[in-house]
Amino acid sequence: MFARVDHLGIAVTDLEASIALHQDALGFELVHREVVEEQGVEAVLFDVGENHVELLAPLGEDTPVGRFLARSGPGLHHVAYQTEDIEAALERLRARGIRLIDETPRTGIRSSRVAFVHPKATGGVLTEIVQPAEGH
Amino acid sequence: MFARVDHLGIAVTDLEASIALHQDALGFELVHREVVEEQGVEAVLFDVGENHVELLAPLGEDTPVGRFLARSGPGLHHVAYQTEDIEAALERLRARGIRLIDETPRTGIRSSRVAFVHPKATGGVLTEIVQPAEGH
Repeated sequence: MFARVDHLGIAVTDLEASIALHQDALGFELVHREVVEEQGVEAVLFDVGENHVELLAPLGEDTPVGRFLARSGPGLHHVAYQTEDIEAALERLRARGIRLIDETPRTGIRSSRVAFVHPKATGGVLTEIVQPAEGH
Repeated sequence: MFARVDHLGIAVTDLEASIALHQDALGFELVHREVVEEQGVEAVLFDVGENHVELLAPLGEDTPVGRFLARSGPGLHHVAYQTEDIEAALERLRARGIRLIDETPRTGIRSSRVAFVHPKATGGVLTEIVQPAEGH
């Protein structure tokens, strides 16, 4: 059902310092940068082979990532698993009684289709399901 | 320098429930299970394409994962990036002033060679470098 880890989401307070770390020290290629007003974040995406690292900087304190940072500080925020068929993946999870945040997919960065699973259903791990757009 | 995300480490309190979640609900294949006395954990490894998810259950409260659970509760614990040359990766990080926990590689599960980077150097993200053993 899942082909790979699509990305790791990392909540950051200092976006430019974190870009420098991932680009210069870790040597990842920066491939995308996007302000997602709807989710209250600026997101920066790096390639790590076929996987990605996604930095998330909040647009304000009263946003999901802003509240996460106030509560937990910077660090790992979520994991996303990649699928070719997000409807089938959600149906499978629903059939097994897994609580979802998004019952139907919504649009993520780079025109992907995404849905979040509730962390209470996944042992405290905020889990995202991603169906990439063609070409990504 | 890094070929892919090697694995995500997840700290768990109920190992059997977490195995059921990853195997049955998410459909990942369980490929390895090992008690690592030296690190104070029982580790369970799943394949997700070429990536892995590693569940970490502490052998006691006074272990790194036991203390993590007491402080933060269950959830994402660390990320590991895969390299073919761990000495070169550590040398690159050292040359860029990145603080390391392990200056030289030690043996991880499935006879991999691993080293941890200090989370203070990586924006709160506990980061592991992994050179898999031949065949993994």
